[in-house]
Amino acid sequence: MSISRLEHDFLGEREIPADAYYGIQTLRALENFYITGIPLKVEPLFVQALALVKKAAALANRDLGVLQPAIADAIAQACDRVAAGEFDGQFLTDMIQGGAGTSVNMNANEVIANVALEIMGYRKGQYEFCHPNNHVNCSQSTNDAYPTAFRIALSNKLVGYSRVLGELADAFAAKGDEFRNVLKMGRTQLQDAVPMSMGDEFRAFATNLREELLRIEDSRRLISEINMGATAIGTGVNAPQGYADLVTKYLRDVTGLDLSLAGDLIEATYDTGAYVQLSGVLKRTAVKLSKICNDLRLLSSGPRCGINEINLPPLQPGSSIMPGKVNPVVPEVVNQTAFYVIGADLTVTMAAEGGQLQLNVMEPVISFALFTSISYMTNACRTLREKCVVGITANKEHAENLVRNSIGIVTQLNPVLGYETSAEVAKEALKTGKSVHDIAVTERQLLSQAKWDEIFTFENLIRPSFVQ
Amino acid sequence: MSISRLEHDFLGEREIPADAYYGIQTLRALENFYITGIPLKVEPLFVQALALVKKAAALANRDLGVLQPAIADAIAQACDRVAAGEFDGQFLTDMIQGGAGTSVNMNANEVIANVALEIMGYRKGQYEFCHPNNHVNCSQSTNDAYPTAFRIALSNKLVGYSRVLGELADAFAAKGDEFRNVLKMGRTQLQDAVPMSMGDEFRAFATNLREELLRIEDSRRLISEINMGATAIGTGVNAPQGYADLVTKYLRDVTGLDLSLAGDLIEATYDTGAYVQLSGVLKRTAVKLSKICNDLRLLSSGPRCGINEINLPPLQPGSSIMPGKVNPVVPEVVNQTAFYVIGADLTVTMAAEGGQLQLNVMEPVISFALFTSISYMTNACRTLREKCVVGITANKEHAENLVRNSIGIVTQLNPVLGYETSAEVAKEALKTGKSVHDIAVTERQLLSQAKWDEIFTFENLIRPSFVQ
Amino acid sequence: MSISRLEHDFLGEREIPADAYYGIQTLRALENFYITGIPLKVEPLFVQALALVKKAAALANRDLGVLQPAIADAIAQACDRVAAGEFDGQFLTDMIQGGAGTSVNMNANEVIANVALEIMGYRKGQYEFCHPNNHVNCSQSTNDAYPTAFRIALSNKLVGYSRVLGELADAFAAKGDEFRNVLKMGRTQLQDAVPMSMGDEFRAFATNLREELLRIEDSRRLISEINMGATAIGTGVNAPQGYADLVTKYLRDVTGLDLSLAGDLIEATYDTGAYVQLSGVLKRTAVKLSKICNDLRLLSSGPRCGINEINLPPLQPGSSIMPGKVNPVVPEVVNQTAFYVIGADLTVTMAAEGGQLQLNVMEPVISFALFTSISYMTNACRTLREKCVVGITANKEHAENLVRNSIGIVTQLNPVLGYETSAEVAKEALKTGKSVHDIAVTERQLLSQAKWDEIFTFENLIRPSFVQ
Amino acid sequence: MSISRLEHDFLGEREIPADAYYGIQTLRALENFYITGIPLKVEPLFVQALALVKKAAALANRDLGVLQPAIADAIAQACDRVAAGEFDGQFLTDMIQGGAGTSVNMNANEVIANVALEIMGYRKGQYEFCHPNNHVNCSQSTNDAYPTAFRIALSNKLVGYSRVLGELADAFAAKGDEFRNVLKMGRTQLQDAVPMSMGDEFRAFATNLREELLRIEDSRRLISEINMGATAIGTGVNAPQGYADLVTKYLRDVTGLDLSLAGDLIEATYDTGAYVQLSGVLKRTAVKLSKICNDLRLLSSGPRCGINEINLPPLQPGSSIMPGKVNPVVPEVVNQTAFYVIGADLTVTMAAEGGQLQLNVMEPVISFALFTSISYMTNACRTLREKCVVGITANKEHAENLVRNSIGIVTQLNPVLGYETSAEVAKEALKTGKSVHDIAVTERQLLSQAKWDEIFTFENLIRPSFVQ
Repeated sequence: MSISRLEHDFLGEREIPADAYYGIQTLRALENFYITGIPLKVEPLFVQALALVKKAAALANRDLGVLQPAIADAIAQACDRVAAGEFDGQFLTDMIQGGAGTSVNMNANEVIANVALEIMGYRKGQYEFCHPNNHVNCSQSTNDAYPTAFRIALSNKLVGYSRVLGELADAFAAKGDEFRNVLKMGRTQLQDAVPMSMGDEFRAFATNLREELLRIEDSRRLISEINMGATAIGTGVNAPQGYADLVTKYLRDVTGLDLSLAGDLIEATYDTGAYVQLSGVLKRTAVKLSKICNDLRLLSSGPRCGINEINLPPLQPGSSIMPGKVNPVVPEVVNQTAFYVIGADLTVTMAAEGGQLQLNVMEPVISFALFTSISYMTNACRTLREKCVVGITANKEHAENLVRNSIGIVTQLNPVLGYETSAEVAKEALKTGKSVHDIAVTERQLLSQAKWDEIFTFENLIRPSFVQ
Repeated sequence: MSISRLEHDFLGEREIPADAYYGIQTLRALENFYITGIPLKVEPLFVQALALVKKAAALANRDLGVLQPAIADAIAQACDRVAAGEFDGQFLTDMIQGGAGTSVNMNANEVIANVALEIMGYRKGQYEFCHPNNHVNCSQSTNDAYPTAFRIALSNKLVGYSRVLGELADAFAAKGDEFRNVLKMGRTQLQDAVPMSMGDEFRAFATNLREELLRIEDSRRLISEINMGATAIGTGVNAPQGYADLVTKYLRDVTGLDLSLAGDLIEATYDTGAYVQLSGVLKRTAVKLSKICNDLRLLSSGPRCGINEINLPPLQPGSSIMPGKVNPVVPEVVNQTAFYVIGADLTVTMAAEGGQLQLNVMEPVISFALFTSISYMTNACRTLREKCVVGITANKEHAENLVRNSIGIVTQLNPVLGYETSAEVAKEALKTGKSVHDIAVTERQLLSQAKWDEIFTFENLIRPSFVQ
Repeated sequence: MSISRLEHDFLGEREIPADAYYGIQTLRALENFYITGIPLKVEPLFVQALALVKKAAALANRDLGVLQPAIADAIAQACDRVAAGEFDGQFLTDMIQGGAGTSVNMNANEVIANVALEIMGYRKGQYEFCHPNNHVNCSQSTNDAYPTAFRIALSNKLVGYSRVLGELADAFAAKGDEFRNVLKMGRTQLQDAVPMSMGDEFRAFATNLREELLRIEDSRRLISEINMGATAIGTGVNAPQGYADLVTKYLRDVTGLDLSLAGDLIEATYDTGAYVQLSGVLKRTAVKLSKICNDLRLLSSGPRCGINEINLPPLQPGSSIMPGKVNPVVPEVVNQTAFYVIGADLTVTMAAEGGQLQLNVMEPVISFALFTSISYMTNACRTLREKCVVGITANKEHAENLVRNSIGIVTQLNPVLGYETSAEVAKEALKTGKSVHDIAVTERQLLSQAKWDEIFTFENLIRPSFVQ
Repeated sequence: MSISRLEHDFLGEREIPADAYYGIQTLRALENFYITGIPLKVEPLFVQALALVKKAAALANRDLGVLQPAIADAIAQACDRVAAGEFDGQFLTDMIQGGAGTSVNMNANEVIANVALEIMGYRKGQYEFCHPNNHVNCSQSTNDAYPTAFRIALSNKLVGYSRVLGELADAFAAKGDEFRNVLKMGRTQLQDAVPMSMGDEFRAFATNLREELLRIEDSRRLISEINMGATAIGTGVNAPQGYADLVTKYLRDVTGLDLSLAGDLIEATYDTGAYVQLSGVLKRTAVKLSKICNDLRLLSSGPRCGINEINLPPLQPGSSIMPGKVNPVVPEVVNQTAFYVIGADLTVTMAAEGGQLQLNVMEPVISFALFTSISYMTNACRTLREKCVVGITANKEHAENLVRNSIGIVTQLNPVLGYETSAEVAKEALKTGKSVHDIAVTERQLLSQAKWDEIFTFENLIRPSFVQ
């Protein structure tokens, strides 16, 4: 039995391993592009989406009479198997390639053609019966098939990310409930400000992240606009009348996504605005996560020489030399993930700016950046929830003592004493080390003990009402 | 007559120029912060917004009985005059300052207090009758008043920007109409692809930019959420019952904007997500503008050794040494503006990430970056339309000759000849320099002259229909 | 007397204000470019450098016989006056322009020509006697004269910046001496680590910044390579034999800088590598300054609910609502400046990447970004030293108490007890709240009091020696 | 036979697979950190460097009497085997982790301890005879061992990168020689400028990249400064007298690198300036490569509707729909790699800014970004040379025809006709489509045919001398 078969394209002939479902153009891509060493198959949702695009195209082509039913059906069947993950191992193209996705599209075209050939009873490589370009890619160009598949994969990948992010927000909200009666000092500019509830602080983290779920939905709406039928540059050259609408309808069916056809196919074929927007949303969430993790690290600083209001669950010895040291390793890894994602957003920005005329040839690096960022963010959110947030405990007594001992409670006296008198009290407290109570009530008799007690109830400290 | 007056705060006493409406805290800000040398007054919309916030607060405070009607009314009247621009020259704080906006807020409080004092018949500095903190800032903190004013100013500034951007899009659309029957070569990856209409190319620019108008509206919605009543950290300490809703209502009235009160004031007081999102939108538009300007420069390259499909209006001699050289100076300046805006987005990102606990102290540099970016983008869009787009002309004959002489038209033969045969024709054309017609019709007789003529009508080249 | 004069270029005729030293091309630039509203004259060192370049060129041209001595001398004299700042007000071109600096170069050519004309007894505009292009710009192109002047201006501007940065480092070093016997807890990952001297902490800030002075010198070396004589694209077209070397020699003389002629003028004419490198150095310093300011804010956090090891000098009331609050406003403004500079570095990066073929047309925005960053950094360093560092005081007693009360001192026991036993002690201290001493010496008797005293001397805590 | 062994740390006990050389802390790291899914072992140079650091420490500890010779020798022997790559598969920690490298350091400590145990005849896990912390990590902390190993690995990795980059520059230089007599139009601002030699254009690419080799050497110098002996925070706690210098000496021996001990160990322990600088150098090279690839794509644009001065070797069919289309896929993939590296530089910047007090906990993401960038850049440079540059051919005749037909040659007439007259000729040529020769010599008789011929020799066009 032969160990290879011959394939050709207009640049010449090449031997392909006999058991490979990919063909000559994939082989050329493997030879031409070795940058990341990370193959396409690490994103099975992308492979799946390519297959779904090819299936919808085959069905539309069949209906419009440009593909024989037998071939179309074999292609559709092959696409189902590829979409199910059966041939993921055949998608070997490096995640960053030149050619604006042509190698990825041809990788899909070749694998599907060969699977379809076998389904029809032929051998791999007998392209006269089902050709990667003439049949599988019929009525398509890389320039519409590739971005459409990319968008479908992104949309599906965002579903999982969104769920994990939502669960993280829920975990913060649960802590918000748990800590609602923990009194603590609020801080602005790292200086003691006014008292608050630790529960409110954690609930705010939840609020902060839940807004991101809405922004992700905005992004999914923007990327649901596709350009099937545009073919090479949006003029629809080589696509039959009615094809664009029909393939879009089929694609809605096979993906279950609310896809719509772009109104201006020329523009849609080069536009990367939706990717820039999505990348911006990922960056925004990364910025927020980083801020939250900075806060968790600040609040758990110590144990004796820092703020120490909360404890993060200890996960591993924190030092190879300092005994007993435990570090906030999970917030730290989330910070770092955020920095990666912010960097990747710049990659997307530059790639988007680098588009020229009727196409943006930089889409592969955009796809690499976005898929990676979503994966890393999903992992980071899951890790942060499982390994950190759910196990956070409050040092209630310490936190409350800090408040009672603080100067910041003087703000509560503003409505009674006025800003300037309150400032005098604060200034003396700072200078002498005395408490606000001693100065205001005992020494200066600026207000009675009864008034003081009315103002400084636990309830009023933690959730201030207005007392004049 | 005295040339100065004495003012004090809890750090001590200082002389203020007698004619200054600002006071001691503004003076300290002038001494403490000299970074950009660009004073607040360069953003009159920000000064206006500060005055509107103070007015709404005064009215709410009056209604709730925490400010005497006479003082409240004087403050409101003073705010009207400040909002009208009468005292812009008193807003001298450097655009970048420490203190999370306190200096800006106090600059406003002091100017308004002194104007109100004069309205009430007092002299500047007689703060016992109207105090910057106790009265003008009543029921407020910098931490709610400042971001609210900032958001109002942004929203208003975006209106002007959006209009100018829309006009630019319209100018491209008009060129789209004008050039609809100019046949030209479409290009992908800088290689000849398939023919298209130049009108479609320019209309696509319009489509591309019009999407941005929607994104700007998204941003305006996000920044219309304010946190008045949050005071220091969102607990509302020192604000009377009902104040938050009432001041928001008044603020809607005096601004005419559809403002809403944030649901979680703790979160809203530190959150900078809306700025990150807006900055991302500005960046996205900058990326698109830069891509469009790159295209304009490519398409007008030459005149003899480039593409030369279009002419940009000549604006100035292009060289101090090369006679007759005219350069695409306006697209060039727009590219550069885009790079500035993309850099400023990074500034916003880092500032947003730098927030800690109950406040983001980096808001001033966010405001500097956003105001500057919107101004520069507005100027760039106006310049691009007025000085460039409206005067663009097409080299119709040259563009059409390029198509007729191209190999790219071979794609039109795909449905008739199949991909592989077409590729053979293309390859020979490239190698020999012959035309596609000569090879396909004359030499190889792959199709008849009649079929050729049916396929290669002007109409079918410029707006291809499917011929099999 | 006439209020205007007529000037023409190959695009037509225009009226110029009679008293203007600039001419028609500057006028066109003013009309064509309104982006930042910031005119060239805000960088007098750039104006000066342009004049010095023109002077050196005039002298070289005279020596080589391509410029009559009388004209050359008048130009040189005019350049001296321009370099002295007498005509700064004539340099009105917007800091961001299209045309790769042509407008800036022509602004200089025109002003110098008219000043020279008056010196020679003619009226402004009588260019037949001294022409902006034929005489002032003789043997030059914008593409060599502009970047050369830019580099000279950068080099001179860096001298001032370097001095101010060095003074800041010195101020930290002085604090290092002052605090050398302040014992404090060292912290890694915001967790208590091991004791150290506060003096060492501040001296390290000085070390950290002094390294930057060397990097600035690296940058000055790279930007001292110029391309005079390259003319349009580096081929030296229109420049007489020997001109490149001669003008470089003259330029060394008139600037006093150690300038050298690039070895490959084609490359040097488009290369922006030196700007990218300099921008990277500015960014690196910004990153360090930001880290240092983050530390100053952390160490001064409190006063009662934070670390509170140091006091920053109070500069202004810190809140419009919270009495007595004083914020670290100067570190905050330096952080923000750093974010600006980091953003500007991205602008430079994108502009550098945007160069094409024989020229980088984006140099004006590079110059805007670099000049602005150097100015802001200079201001920030000066402010940080004057308003903050020199006034910092240590809370010696509090800092030392934190150490004595800490668990972190257990690391000192490692060589005696081993890592695992020490970890047991630490773990129990954390759990029970007891001191390390109580557990190790009193309860478990793991070491004698005498050994303890030997290990935990003040000197050994602050500057540990090895005790086994 | 047991399939696992029990190990404990101060957080508890865990089962470790019996054949694993790593231990409990590595296991915890695997459980705690799953972000990238990319394990440490993908950087064998890092594993090697860790082993070399541990070896040098063991030898120094032995000499100073803090490690028994038998244990030290076993550790050293184990390090040799690890450095040789024998245990790469045991280095499984995710490339991004929290803990500032502690997990990486402990992974090394554990593997080396277990290898040493077997060398000494014990079983894995019998740490009483050779302990990961007490023996392998003796006199070290993660905070000195980790960055030192990282720096050694970087330095070694840069050697390979530098070589490949140098070979790319050489390939451009070779093309510079090959094309030295190809006359072509030089272009500035995408407009025809003046003629030049294509050889000069390619040699300039070589010059441009060769400068990078010097910058890489600068970086290697900066990262050769290490902080061994600093231990936890730079005070050297737990390290014996003389250790820092001795371990540095041993490390120079075992690595063959010119390492030096930092003068200020407190500063050196948290400083990330050298990484920022190196990342900036990688970014600078990426910017240059991207510019060069943009140029290659521009110069090869066409084949019929672009510039088409050069041909890139065809590597793969360029379109799934457009027959015969061949794209510049290699420059495209290099552009994308550059965008990735520029994004990674931002990651490094943010991570560097995120350091706090005595340590930068974000080093792992810095290491991930730098290792990845160097790998990708190395791959990109190799690909660009092998698959593209060496096969570039010139379309000599076409390039020369463009020059002869251009208006740009009018600049050569400046010294004879003056700028204004030349501009008139240019303007008419542009307007009428006539040639410069026809207008200047035939119609207007501005110069004789003889003078024309003297000026427009091939030699003078390609390498202009000055003719007046």
